[in-house]
Amino acid sequence: MKDAAEILKSFHVPFEITIVSAHRTPERMYSFAVSAKERGVQIIIAGAGGAAHLPGMVASLTPLPVIGVPIRTSSLDGVDSLLSIVQMPKGIPVATVAIGNAANAALLAVRMLATGDDELWERLIKYHELLRDTVLDKAEKLEGGGWEKYINP
Amino acid sequence: MKDAAEILKSFHVPFEITIVSAHRTPERMYSFAVSAKERGVQIIIAGAGGAAHLPGMVASLTPLPVIGVPIRTSSLDGVDSLLSIVQMPKGIPVATVAIGNAANAALLAVRMLATGDDELWERLIKYHELLRDTVLDKAEKLEGGGWEKYINP
Amino acid sequence: MKDAAEILKSFHVPFEITIVSAHRTPERMYSFAVSAKERGVQIIIAGAGGAAHLPGMVASLTPLPVIGVPIRTSSLDGVDSLLSIVQMPKGIPVATVAIGNAANAALLAVRMLATGDDELWERLIKYHELLRDTVLDKAEKLEGGGWEKYINP
Amino acid sequence: MKDAAEILKSFHVPFEITIVSAHRTPERMYSFAVSAKERGVQIIIAGAGGAAHLPGMVASLTPLPVIGVPIRTSSLDGVDSLLSIVQMPKGIPVATVAIGNAANAALLAVRMLATGDDELWERLIKYHELLRDTVLDKAEKLEGGGWEKYINP
Amino acid sequence: MKDAAEILKSFHVPFEITIVSAHRTPERMYSFAVSAKERGVQIIIAGAGGAAHLPGMVASLTPLPVIGVPIRTSSLDGVDSLLSIVQMPKGIPVATVAIGNAANAALLAVRMLATGDDELWERLIKYHELLRDTVLDKAEKLEGGGWEKYINP
Amino acid sequence: MKDAAEILKSFHVPFEITIVSAHRTPERMYSFAVSAKERGVQIIIAGAGGAAHLPGMVASLTPLPVIGVPIRTSSLDGVDSLLSIVQMPKGIPVATVAIGNAANAALLAVRMLATGDDELWERLIKYHELLRDTVLDKAEKLEGGGWEKYINP
Amino acid sequence: MKDAAEILKSFHVPFEITIVSAHRTPERMYSFAVSAKERGVQIIIAGAGGAAHLPGMVASLTPLPVIGVPIRTSSLDGVDSLLSIVQMPKGIPVATVAIGNAANAALLAVRMLATGDDELWERLIKYHELLRDTVLDKAEKLEGGGWEKYINP
Amino acid sequence: MKDAAEILKSFHVPFEITIVSAHRTPERMYSFAVSAKERGVQIIIAGAGGAAHLPGMVASLTPLPVIGVPIRTSSLDGVDSLLSIVQMPKGIPVATVAIGNAANAALLAVRMLATGDDELWERLIKYHELLRDTVLDKAEKLEGGGWEKYINP
Repeated sequence: MKDAAEILKSFHVPFEITIVSAHRTPERMYSFAVSAKERGVQIIIAGAGGAAHLPGMVASLTPLPVIGVPIRTSSLDGVDSLLSIVQMPKGIPVATVAIGNAANAALLAVRMLATGDDELWERLIKYHELLRDTVLDKAEKLEGGGWEKYINP
Repeated sequence: MKDAAEILKSFHVPFEITIVSAHRTPERMYSFAVSAKERGVQIIIAGAGGAAHLPGMVASLTPLPVIGVPIRTSSLDGVDSLLSIVQMPKGIPVATVAIGNAANAALLAVRMLATGDDELWERLIKYHELLRDTVLDKAEKLEGGGWEKYINP
Repeated sequence: MKDAAEILKSFHVPFEITIVSAHRTPERMYSFAVSAKERGVQIIIAGAGGAAHLPGMVASLTPLPVIGVPIRTSSLDGVDSLLSIVQMPKGIPVATVAIGNAANAALLAVRMLATGDDELWERLIKYHELLRDTVLDKAEKLEGGGWEKYINP
Repeated sequence: MKDAAEILKSFHVPFEITIVSAHRTPERMYSFAVSAKERGVQIIIAGAGGAAHLPGMVASLTPLPVIGVPIRTSSLDGVDSLLSIVQMPKGIPVATVAIGNAANAALLAVRMLATGDDELWERLIKYHELLRDTVLDKAEKLEGGGWEKYINP
Repeated sequence: MKDAAEILKSFHVPFEITIVSAHRTPERMYSFAVSAKERGVQIIIAGAGGAAHLPGMVASLTPLPVIGVPIRTSSLDGVDSLLSIVQMPKGIPVATVAIGNAANAALLAVRMLATGDDELWERLIKYHELLRDTVLDKAEKLEGGGWEKYINP
Repeated sequence: MKDAAEILKSFHVPFEITIVSAHRTPERMYSFAVSAKERGVQIIIAGAGGAAHLPGMVASLTPLPVIGVPIRTSSLDGVDSLLSIVQMPKGIPVATVAIGNAANAALLAVRMLATGDDELWERLIKYHELLRDTVLDKAEKLEGGGWEKYINP
Repeated sequence: MKDAAEILKSFHVPFEITIVSAHRTPERMYSFAVSAKERGVQIIIAGAGGAAHLPGMVASLTPLPVIGVPIRTSSLDGVDSLLSIVQMPKGIPVATVAIGNAANAALLAVRMLATGDDELWERLIKYHELLRDTVLDKAEKLEGGGWEKYINP
Repeated sequence: MKDAAEILKSFHVPFEITIVSAHRTPERMYSFAVSAKERGVQIIIAGAGGAAHLPGMVASLTPLPVIGVPIRTSSLDGVDSLLSIVQMPKGIPVATVAIGNAANAALLAVRMLATGDDELWERLIKYHELLRDTVLDKAEKLEGGGWEKYINP
């Protein structure tokens, strides 16, 4: 989940980060989720692996938007984590991102916040330009020097 | 879950049956699981489909043995239900049976109870003899009349 | 996607609904996505099946939050749709919900909007109470009349 | 299966441990399973990989509760082991735990025994408190020192 | 398994057919397999579904060649049956054919017997010519009348 | 994609190679695809991983034949890449090759061009002879020296 | 494969259509593939299901481009057909399209031919405009009358 | 395939071993398969990976029994190899063994030959006793010294 923290920090989005286990600390999860709104939390990002119940259970305990990150901890490449998180029943959604992609969970949170925050919106635009420019630089280097030099500089 | 109720009834095992949803009634699930032991419950059977969190969450809220039945409710043939139930992390086991096989969940509960209950053990022995005899009857019919007559009586 | 429209309507959330195909109308998708923010759109919900490129491509064309619904149109039970939508690379997230669960896409959008809208928040709380009460009613009926009567009324 | 032995030892649950192969020593498996009850065995834990027939065959030879551990020995990440163990036909259940999770098989056995053994029940309660406290300690350390220091101490 | 019986009959290969369940009649399976050779059996064909243990267990009880047919009885399209039958450990092979393809199990048995039986070999050659001619007839009809007439005669 | 470049070079097929990202540079992808035909491009080879949208989106923007290479970049062994590329809807095909097999993408392009280019056809024939001779050489070595010497020279 | 024939006919592309089985008529497949080039064939489309060997074997017998259509004939939703066709080894490519999508196989062939045929290129442009206009018409109807009327006309 | 050669050698079964590629040397495969019977071959073992066409194509060219070994060469853990080999259509069976288990292919061949060869049958019986005794020795060691000493000698 380190990637998520770094993304949020780079966007100057304040966040709290802690450890909650749906299975080992169910009461803590309960109080954490139920009190989140009044503690001023706007979005919750939850990562979990295997029988990954944390994101779905948190989403059932608070109407805040919950973003789930399927962690690749088990022997099944994270397929179990993905299905446990994404296949929620009608009524309780979890916004699921790619397996192991905590960075995208943070970026999704930034997108949600940026719709009502012009400054954050500008930072998102810049971030996308940066993504684009990184690709363009590589393309220029590849086209300029030829593919054989690009592979073996 | 009807099959489970019928098996338990046929073994004269007393049981209570109710409806709890991990996602739609998380508080009810909480109080149900936490109070189960003192209400005299010895084993809990929980069926769930899709992101099937009920069995695992109940198992995290009580040290009673929990048997999980992966229900085939989603578009994925119950593979999501199976993985969400069986892939529990170290510390919190769920005794998982086959997809859609609530009868086996009840039979597993009967086995657990029968180790300390001679009468129940006898009923289990009889049940196995019945399973065996049903196969033997079919075999006799097949061998006696020939396979062509067996298929088209 | 009818379920999504009905959810949004029941929550009094204004929305526009149209048909865009990433593969058959790529230019329309392009102008639709690029102009969404200035047309006042805050969140985009996109359903797609098979090689389901629409949600991811829209997310690459606008920094608005994009919710993807994997449609079960192909022969693979929607597994292809799910993977094509959820497995986005670092930088461009899509908030993915369960296969065929357009209702949850709308509910996720409502959750996003409700964090800054007290009235909507209240409606969400009521919606969750409704989900809960539906389960409680069924449970009462089951416990009151017994499981055999519940199954064969 | 070492993890199972260690869990059972830590709970002071007496156990015997041996090696049986459904395919290489079918007769030994037969006599082992059939005599288990009269040797005083109450629960059987069986680990197996690939075409993992041991748990299911033992369950067909004795009415004792059988816990199956899908071992990850084959090239298929243990999916074959899981399906061979969990997908038992109606009549013969195997209590299946997560792939490679022998510890949970032992914990499941402890749960079964603890329902009729107050001392064991107390140890289970303590074990759950320990699981919880380990998470709480980590959470405190993370919240106290900040996530950056937590990752790079 | 009807297809297998019909193939064997059409090739004039004598066979016995019966019903054995690895899980419901383990003792019958045991005596059936152990006595097969002395009863004059040369090849065993076993069909099974779900946690399909019959072919593998029979193969562990007799050195006769065992052909396994994965039956499509479960909710998993027969993938569980296939993996339970084919993924046998080193030492005990099962000759596995396609899911639900009992006819091919019989044809495989015929191939095994035909290597030492000239008459049977001739019948196999004829069978292959028949397969070929059926395709050639269709091709001729298609090419003669054109594809539109072929589809809508 | 290096393998593709080397194959094309060895067949003396002129090609341009660059970097385009469907998600990070959607505009560049758009102009690249739309202008390809008039820049003299005859066939486009596109490699992509995860939610691999590039080949399908390029195919929707130009009627040139597009060959897609599923890259194995994600945690799912490239299954997501394969399904995202191959499962295109009716109307917009992508010629998909094996996971990670960029060489075959180039060879497929060569086959397309060779149908109207006798010299290229000859080179293809030679290439196939080379493939064959490599196998024949190995076979000769194996048969000549025996398999034990072949494995441990 | 009817869809492929109709697409080719609508594009005025001359084609021959016949029935060949890799397994039932291997010799016919051999002579068909080896003679294709001199019979004037430029592209081969082959559909196959299950252990779908036809496209790959034809591609190994002729350097013509071969397009493979995974047919959904088996119990595995066509996953076996897809993998048997697409996962060709280095040296022998098959241009694979979506499961059951014979129309796209024909469209891929048209794309290949159109790069050197201006008239065909124009027809392809028109076909794409038609795809687009069909979507635009639906969108107009939906936007004009509202989604509720669109669903229940 | 080294394991197969060693098994056959240890059973004193004469065999020839060579390299044939369905895709790179289709003509060699053709003549190899068609002439096998008259060269005195009784059983053919063929290993192949990815789009593994060799076993099925050989089985379509000769009525000899063909044993297929799915090799784990591709990125898909051998699932593609397994399905390409086992899912043969009605009429042409391939006796498929576990992924990567060439030893079992050889043992299957030995079983086929042993039904008509008393000496070979004896060797098979001995081989099974050896398998059994290896397990018994381990069990004795484990039970004698205790599991802790067994793991850390």
